[in-house]
Amino acid sequence: MSTPAPVSMSATLAADEVLARRRRAGERVLAMTSGEIGLPVHPALRERLAAAADENAYGPVAGSPALRAAAAGYWQRRGLGVEPGLVVAGPGSKALLFALFLAIGGDVVVPVPSWVSYAAQARLVGARPVPVPILPGQGGVPDPERLREAVTVARAAGRNPRSVVVTVPDNPTGTVAAPDTVRRFAAVARELDLVVVSDEIYCDLVYDTSGPAVSPAVHAPERTVVTTGLTKNLALGGWRTGVARLPDSDIGRALHTRLVSVASQIWSSPPAPVQVAAAYAFGEPPEITEHIARSRRLHEAVVRAVADRFTGAGAALHPVSATCYLYPDFEPLRAHLAERHGVRDGSGLAHLLLERHGVGVLPADAFGEPRSSLRIRAATSRLYGDSDERRTTALAAPDPLELPWIREAVERIGEVLSGLTNSTARVPARVPEP
Amino acid sequence: MSTPAPVSMSATLAADEVLARRRRAGERVLAMTSGEIGLPVHPALRERLAAAADENAYGPVAGSPALRAAAAGYWQRRGLGVEPGLVVAGPGSKALLFALFLAIGGDVVVPVPSWVSYAAQARLVGARPVPVPILPGQGGVPDPERLREAVTVARAAGRNPRSVVVTVPDNPTGTVAAPDTVRRFAAVARELDLVVVSDEIYCDLVYDTSGPAVSPAVHAPERTVVTTGLTKNLALGGWRTGVARLPDSDIGRALHTRLVSVASQIWSSPPAPVQVAAAYAFGEPPEITEHIARSRRLHEAVVRAVADRFTGAGAALHPVSATCYLYPDFEPLRAHLAERHGVRDGSGLAHLLLERHGVGVLPADAFGEPRSSLRIRAATSRLYGDSDERRTTALAAPDPLELPWIREAVERIGEVLSGLTNSTARVPARVPEP
Repeated sequence: MSTPAPVSMSATLAADEVLARRRRAGERVLAMTSGEIGLPVHPALRERLAAAADENAYGPVAGSPALRAAAAGYWQRRGLGVEPGLVVAGPGSKALLFALFLAIGGDVVVPVPSWVSYAAQARLVGARPVPVPILPGQGGVPDPERLREAVTVARAAGRNPRSVVVTVPDNPTGTVAAPDTVRRFAAVARELDLVVVSDEIYCDLVYDTSGPAVSPAVHAPERTVVTTGLTKNLALGGWRTGVARLPDSDIGRALHTRLVSVASQIWSSPPAPVQVAAAYAFGEPPEITEHIARSRRLHEAVVRAVADRFTGAGAALHPVSATCYLYPDFEPLRAHLAERHGVRDGSGLAHLLLERHGVGVLPADAFGEPRSSLRIRAATSRLYGDSDERRTTALAAPDPLELPWIREAVERIGEVLSGLTNSTARVPARVPEP
Repeated sequence: MSTPAPVSMSATLAADEVLARRRRAGERVLAMTSGEIGLPVHPALRERLAAAADENAYGPVAGSPALRAAAAGYWQRRGLGVEPGLVVAGPGSKALLFALFLAIGGDVVVPVPSWVSYAAQARLVGARPVPVPILPGQGGVPDPERLREAVTVARAAGRNPRSVVVTVPDNPTGTVAAPDTVRRFAAVARELDLVVVSDEIYCDLVYDTSGPAVSPAVHAPERTVVTTGLTKNLALGGWRTGVARLPDSDIGRALHTRLVSVASQIWSSPPAPVQVAAAYAFGEPPEITEHIARSRRLHEAVVRAVADRFTGAGAALHPVSATCYLYPDFEPLRAHLAERHGVRDGSGLAHLLLERHGVGVLPADAFGEPRSSLRIRAATSRLYGDSDERRTTALAAPDPLELPWIREAVERIGEVLSGLTNSTARVPARVPEP
């Protein structure tokens, strides 16, 4: 390369650092910027990490046999059986995604909207993201017809898209693409000979456990790489652990060789003590499964309450069915926001919420949407308490909204939003789901 | 990019995995391939990691304030004072080096020989390595005159070298570039406007503590990035922790911004519990300093004994003055090796040593030397014992060569080498240092 690749700080992490500084300065802030999960480490995992503190060898680049076997079992229980030899562990699924883009090469198709780092990572490896919009309310998966069109146009223009990334369930929208959309998407990805990189880190956070998200690996098993980690379901972001499941096919085996080589040159191996605890977690003993179920119910309760405040204030919002994210659209209030607050885009709206009210959210352009969009993403995962004691209480609470610190946070959001939009509906009716 | 970057598995890690498989299969192997340090975790660090097992937040991308302050103090005590705001921590100095190459952009000048991953990382980020030989016996730093020539030629050919990486003390040669060489190198790097990336991970492993290695940051402070970690001095490779010290200059501050952005998109933050223990280690309390001193003395004793076996067998070897590496050259035995064993290059020699004798070493071409070279790199750091008990005993031993398992390993190397070369000198005289 002759000039360094363009790169900007991860929008979520940057916003988090700004909020942390304001909090340290004594300001009252409501952090809804990043999806960091503000919940404690499960005691069993804490103990296993502590007991593994003498593990100081690198071990295999792809992760320990125990961790890979546990991850394979985790996928097996979800209908995605895989041999442990096709599992690669890394220091976070973010690092694995970056290494995958490097290993696959070519340009990367990204949904619009999508997580802040896909497009940034693609640019870092010298690729260009090919943006393709989602279908309304079906976040994380590019509209299959527009995918075909965009890739055809890109190839005709001499570009070389080789992969497409999807997020099932989705960040930022908190929605889950319908099974039929995933099926049609997978068929088009095969037709276009694209490798599918399916980020399923929110897989365990679908509220309705009777209807789990469908992975594209079901429909295009020969070309779909699945990644996940323990950052979201077990709040272990700071431990840095993720796993990738490679397809059992020629594509998959060739990619496995390249991915492990890339990993060996960038990070050597995932942190060894963390691998021991991660292997335990992926084994899904009942105490861990129950912990995840509690966090899922907590997210659902708080997300729904916050969603009511947004819709009550007049924002449009597709029903959230997974994760800890909301992606409300203030388009119905565009005239009012412009006239009353001089706000004309998502960035202006996020700025107003932060500067005037101490409420941190991210504008939609961080997720690849046009700057003019009045969408924002809000995460509820930092509202559960500012001490481990409160967070533990929140996890165990039958109705988390009865806890004063959570109720206050939700009410504060309601007040800020109704103040912003002059709405009077302070406790709006719940919006029915389809 | 239209095709994926070329990449091969890290030679050291690949060789390690082969040896581990052979050992599991019950074969007798002597692992001298990788520089992984086979020594136990210091109990104080083990305790601190265990106590930090509830740390699950990402924290700042650049690492915790405590870790950055501790690393700044570590450098301050070595005459390289820096404000903590210019320190960036990552999951291993390997990851930091990769991110630095990405952040700096352009082609990368690498010494020949040099660590297996610099050139591989440069290729991964789409750059081309510009190889420049070292001066004899002064490993890790390109010959200043040949550096000027190579960069001038590369620029005339339209290439854009923007950085040069050095290793002080050096892997693979176990030597330390002379202060005057470093001074002249730094002057040429400034003249050529190159950013210097100085990998100083072996800084604490110079045998003669009265004459530490000189960092190029002393002579070109405005353009030298220094990296280090705890992998070598405290045997914490599996914990994945490293730090970078950026220059206090316009170059340094611009690079800091880019480096943190790259880090935010690849790994988010270093593993949080490890950061707590690393902060303690970089604080250098007496128990840690003493532990490092013991490991340094252990390396020295075993390296010197093994070096004697190599020179006694007729290989040429520049005196080793740091690290746990030897880089003997079998050129004086070329005719004999070809005639008797059909060995014509380093790769053939390494193959013979492994297949016939179970002795794992790496050929010089892994370090960028011509394939025809008869140099190999041998690391002693896995000879200290195969249990934590033996390793702890080795660390404490006044004369480690009196321990039966270390003596046996050294003697076995001697036997293999004399068998290979028909030399009779089984306990050769020590080669005098200059």
